[in-house]
Formats: sequence, structure tokens, C-alpha cells
Amino acid sequence: LNRQIANQPVTIFTLMSELARKHNAINLGQGFPDTEGPQDMVQLAADALLDGRNQYAPLTGLPELRAAVAGASARFQNIPVDAESEVVVTSGATEALAASFMALIEPGDEVVLIEPLYDTYLPVVRQLGGIPRLVRLEAPDWALPREALKNAFGPRTKAIVLNTPMNPTGKVFTAEELAFIADLMRQHDTYAICDEVYEHLVFGAPHLSLMALPDMRERCIRIGSAGKSFSFTGWKVGYVTAPAPLAAVVAKAHQNLVFATAPNLQRAVAFGLNKDTAYFTQLAQEMDTKRQILSAGLARVGFGVLPCQGSYFVMADITPLANGLDDMAFSRLLTEQAGVTTIPASAFYDAQSGTPPRNLIRFAFCKREEVLIEAVARLEQWK
Amino acid sequence: LNRQIANQPVTIFTLMSELARKHNAINLGQGFPDTEGPQDMVQLAADALLDGRNQYAPLTGLPELRAAVAGASARFQNIPVDAESEVVVTSGATEALAASFMALIEPGDEVVLIEPLYDTYLPVVRQLGGIPRLVRLEAPDWALPREALKNAFGPRTKAIVLNTPMNPTGKVFTAEELAFIADLMRQHDTYAICDEVYEHLVFGAPHLSLMALPDMRERCIRIGSAGKSFSFTGWKVGYVTAPAPLAAVVAKAHQNLVFATAPNLQRAVAFGLNKDTAYFTQLAQEMDTKRQILSAGLARVGFGVLPCQGSYFVMADITPLANGLDDMAFSRLLTEQAGVTTIPASAFYDAQSGTPPRNLIRFAFCKREEVLIEAVARLEQWK
Ligand SMILES: CSCCC(=O)C(=O)O
Ligand SMILES: CSCCC(=O)C(=O)O
Repeated sequence: LNRQIANQPVTIFTLMSELARKHNAINLGQGFPDTEGPQDMVQLAADALLDGRNQYAPLTGLPELRAAVAGASARFQNIPVDAESEVVVTSGATEALAASFMALIEPGDEVVLIEPLYDTYLPVVRQLGGIPRLVRLEAPDWALPREALKNAFGPRTKAIVLNTPMNPTGKVFTAEELAFIADLMRQHDTYAICDEVYEHLVFGAPHLSLMALPDMRERCIRIGSAGKSFSFTGWKVGYVTAPAPLAAVVAKAHQNLVFATAPNLQRAVAFGLNKDTAYFTQLAQEMDTKRQILSAGLARVGFGVLPCQGSYFVMADITPLANGLDDMAFSRLLTEQAGVTTIPASAFYDAQSGTPPRNLIRFAFCKREEVLIEAVARLEQWK
Repeated sequence: LNRQIANQPVTIFTLMSELARKHNAINLGQGFPDTEGPQDMVQLAADALLDGRNQYAPLTGLPELRAAVAGASARFQNIPVDAESEVVVTSGATEALAASFMALIEPGDEVVLIEPLYDTYLPVVRQLGGIPRLVRLEAPDWALPREALKNAFGPRTKAIVLNTPMNPTGKVFTAEELAFIADLMRQHDTYAICDEVYEHLVFGAPHLSLMALPDMRERCIRIGSAGKSFSFTGWKVGYVTAPAPLAAVVAKAHQNLVFATAPNLQRAVAFGLNKDTAYFTQLAQEMDTKRQILSAGLARVGFGVLPCQGSYFVMADITPLANGLDDMAFSRLLTEQAGVTTIPASAFYDAQSGTPPRNLIRFAFCKREEVLIEAVARLEQWK
């Protein structure tokens, strides 16, 4: 068997969700909302099943969804793209990431990755023969370490992966940080994979796409997620926007990986992306309220709550409460004893190099307010 | 960009489907039915969207679908599997294939592939650093060339891919052929990826799974497809059955590639797999009728129609009609002049080695009878 894949741990999200179920804990681990997205989208997805379009969708997606993705790209990111040649619909952002890596990487290529990072980046890069060059952000402010980033770029750099708003830190990259990254990309003639699945979930800080910066249009693969933008994580509908020559290669990788995505779900997502801007601002506002409830509650309990400008997640320093336990042990203990499940932040660091911080855990706040309040009450009681 | 992926042609299925649309031709190219599958499954899939289970499904699939896959494996293939640990639900058979290759192949591993072959096998094997060892079946009977197969196995062989019922040939491998392959696998201690997406579509010849043979249980990854078994190719729900240690690694590859599949579609497919055996025999009977209509019609037109024991497809020798044109040119001409689209069989051969036959085209007969009759009428008129 492939040893690298075989040795890869089962994803921490599955592990902690199973632990939550076992202990009947409130699951603030895996990032998924506990309420459904817009009812009109569900109804459209259901109706769409019934009118006889259940065979293969086109490889790059239904024309109506590609048009809607292009429309949203122009409307929200100020990045005009051609719906015909510059959009590829995928089976979720995870597949979009895999297809993008496959399109770019040849064995020996270096890829700059920013820690803490989402847990599919490293195994996919490694399986393709890519060489990760890791740059680490440090809590509590997660500022870009410019010198280290500069040193990570070199003649073999093929691409950087930039996740903003960032999971698990909740960081939103600033215009200055993006400009610095763009400079390095120009100097070293590299691409970027822009994982922007939380593009609509920002709290005060504006979301800026690297792809909108000068000269970046031709270098960036931008990834969006209907799961995150419409609270239907189960549908697994994602999309890539990229300059045509790049999108064509992503499409070929997609052809080998999955080929197409369910037409009825694509039609519902097209409808969703065409919604008024008010839908998206309201989604962010509601999420911000949830964030505030949880952050304030965790602070009251005694956690060192870190700032969060975007995403579903807030990080917390466990030092005041953990009694010397590391993040993994403390996470287990919280599930078992307090009935609240979180993700130990060390899971977002390379297991093969360096020493991850062991004093941080990640809470998901994409849950109903009463659930967040109950979670905080459980933590206070346990403390 | 990754040169291998970039140089890969756009899949012949997309190419010919687009050509068909452009010329308003009857599309007997890409293999998808032109009628919907069971209405109760569509209704269940629609209802299932409305009851609030639209977040991430478990990584390996919903328990009800895994149980149904295990049930069908025991009922139809006589292969008992554990629903908990030996089934992985994927986003279609294409993803199941990619995940299986990722689970098995390390750079330098050899993989035995049988030509003509489905068009994702070779690029995926090559991107993973695997070395294809091609063995070619020859028309019209597509018998297994035992000597050549024996020579293709060696100390570096990791796996063989066996597609039965076979696309594009319509061949169903016999018990003797399977036994010969199993012998080689034992001798060389290899795995098999068993692409059995047409398992229920056989016409007279019984479908036998390699996995049901002695000692093969621990060596085989078996792939099924709801698209093909229920005529919903757009849903992209597939499944892998494999011994637990192997299934665990396939699940990890799936975790990196897609992670999960839409819960409502999984629930509908679970319902479908639990249908009476009568459903599956009727599906095969109806498909056989279609096959007979098309095969007889093509013979009347003057094609050299090859035998077909299973799948959606029948191959035809174009020599009597093609006036010296090769399969690609003749396929184009049929679309443009006769208004009937097919797939040139050379697309199912490695473009990088050997010379494919240029006298065969593939017809899909998974269409309404009146469509098949009209296609034949068009061909007769054109001739
Ligand atoms: C695909 S499960 C992980 C969901 C997620 O994005 C997260 O929790 O970080
Ligand atoms: C994924 S499109 C190809 C469908 C198919 O199986 C075929 O036509 O061979």
C-alpha cells in the first residue's frame, strides 16, 4: 500500500466528531452549521431532481452555475472572469484543492504553505511529489513573518497556498500582507492557490482576494465553497476561478478525480449565488453575533480567547485551565468531562517537522445561539 | 503547470457530446441513459433534502448506504463484507478509481492494465508515478491473451485493473479467465482494482467478480456505481468494497480528494440497493432489448457488429462503410453527415505507446428504443 497515505492519520475532524457522539458532547469541533441554509435553495434542489436532469453534468459545471460564479466574482471580489473558460465546478473545495495541486505540481516543485494549515494540503502536496516549504504564523496576532516567507521562496517555488479568511486562526490577511506576497510571487514567478471558502464570513475586516491585486489575475487559482457560503456543507459543491489556460488544466485534473457534480445541487447553488448582497451580509452578521457570544463566554470561563476576524472558528489559549495538559489531552478531557468538543490546534501543523504549539484549541461557532450558550454553561460548570 | 495533465486531451466523451450538440446529432457517444431511473428514488432524494440532513456526511458514507452496499455485495456477488469497516462511499466510480490508485501505488510500482481501457486509468496511474504495463485484447472476441498477461506480471507489479463487464468492448470475463488472473495475482502477490460498474448489466453471460474467487477477498478493491445501476449518472455516487485494512487506506485517499458525498443522494441510493432482485433483472432485460435493437439495426446498415455480453456499449467495425477513413474521422463524419454520434475506439488505447486499431467505433445503447430506431434510420439514409 502507499505508505504515506496509509500512515496518514484519520482526519481529526472525524475523530473528534466520533468522540463527541460517543460522549453526547456539544460538537464545536468539525466546522459545519447546525442549521440549514436558505429554504428556497433546498426547495429548488428538491424540485430540480424531479424535472429529468439527473444524468452527467458537463465536466466544468452547468452553464448557469458557471455564470453565477462569474457574477459573484465580479460583484464581491471585483474580479471579472469568463464563465465559459475560467470557472470549474468541483465536488466541494476539498476536490478543488486536490485538482489545483494536481494541475500545478510536478515532482520536485516546492510549495509554500502557511502553518497552521488545513489538513489536506500537506498529504496531497507530498503525494504529488511536491516539497512543502512551511512558514509559521504565531499566536496571538498571526502576523505574516515577512523574512521567513521571503526565505521560503526560491527558484523551485511553484506556488503558495493562501487561505484567507484563515482556518483555524480566524485571521483575515491585510492589503499590505497580500501586497507583500504578490511581490514575492512576481519576483519568483509563481502561482497561488487561494483558498477563500470563508470569503463571505468576515467580521469588520474586509475580505480581499490576492487575485484582485495587480498582475495576480493570471497567477491565481481562487477556490470558493457553496457549503460555507450557504450553510450546506453536505452538498459538496465548490468552484474554482482561474485564468483560462490554468482553468483548462484544473478541469483535466477534475476529469480524472470526479468528472462532474450533481446537477440539481449545482442549480440550487447557482440560484444562491445570484441572491441579493443582503443575504451575504446577513450571513456574516449572524455569524459575528455567534462569534461574540462564544468568545465572551469562553473569556468568562477563563480561556485566553484570541481575536477572530473571519471564518467559522475562534482559537483559545488553554493555559489558564489545562493544568499542564497538552491541547490533545485537554480536548479529550473537555469532551469527556465537560461535554464540549473542540479541535486541538496541533492537528493543523505538520506532524513530520517542527514542534506545534500545544496550548491552543479551536472552537467552531457556526451553531445556534442556544447551543453556544449551553456549551459555555457546561464549561463553566466543569471548571 | 503539470505537463502530463496539461497535455492530456479533453476527454473524448466531452468532445463528442459537444460535437453532438453542435450538429443536433443523436448522442450514442457518452454512456448515459436518456431516461431517468426509478421515480421512487428521485422522490426519496427530493424528500431527503427537506428534513434537515444537509451537512457533511461521514467520511466513509452514511451507515444506511454502507449497510445497503454490504447487503448487495452478499446478495449479488456472494461476497460478504462488513458495512462498518469494508465499505467506502465515493463521489462516483471515477473518484473511487482515483482513491484506489492513490491507496495502492507508490512511485515505481507497476500496474497491469488491459486495453482497450477507460480513459482515466492511465493518467492517474502515471501521475502517481506508477508504471503501466499494458496488455491488449483483440477484436472481435477480446479473449484474454494469457501469455502476454503472464509476461506483464513481475516482481514490481502492485496491481491489475480488471473491468468486467468491460467498457468499451462489452466483454464479460469468464470464470476461466478470472481464475487465470487470480493465479497470477497469487504468484506475484498483487492486488486488483475491480471496476464492476456494469455488474448488473449483463445479457446472458453471468457477471462474476474476481473478488469472489478463492484467496481474492483480501486482494481486491471492488468498485460499484449507482449511476450505472440506477440510471442516475449525474448523481455521482459510487462505492468501494475492500478488506478492512485496504478500505481504511482508500478512505484516507478519499479524505484528501473529496471527503464526503451529498447525504440525500446517499439515502436514495441506499433505498435503491435494497430493491427486490426483480428490479435489477428487469434493468438488464430492458438494456438487452435495446442492445438487440441497435445491434440488429447496425448490422442492417452494414457495420461489422461485434458481440456484446454486458455494459452500455456495443463495438462496430467500420471497414465496410468508412471508405478508408479512420475511426476518429469516420466518427466526426457520422455526427456531421448522418446526425449520429459515437466514440472512436482508439480513444480507449494509450496514446503514448503502440498503434490502436482504427477500424472500430463504440455505440451506447442505453437510450430509448425510438431513439435507437431513429439513429439506425438516419444511418441507413446516410449510407
Ligand atoms: C471536511 S471536514 C472539516 C470541516 C472544516 O472545514 C473544518 O472543520 O476545518
Ligand atoms: C464520465 S463520462 C463517460 C461515461 C462513460 O462511462 C463512458 O461513456 O464510457
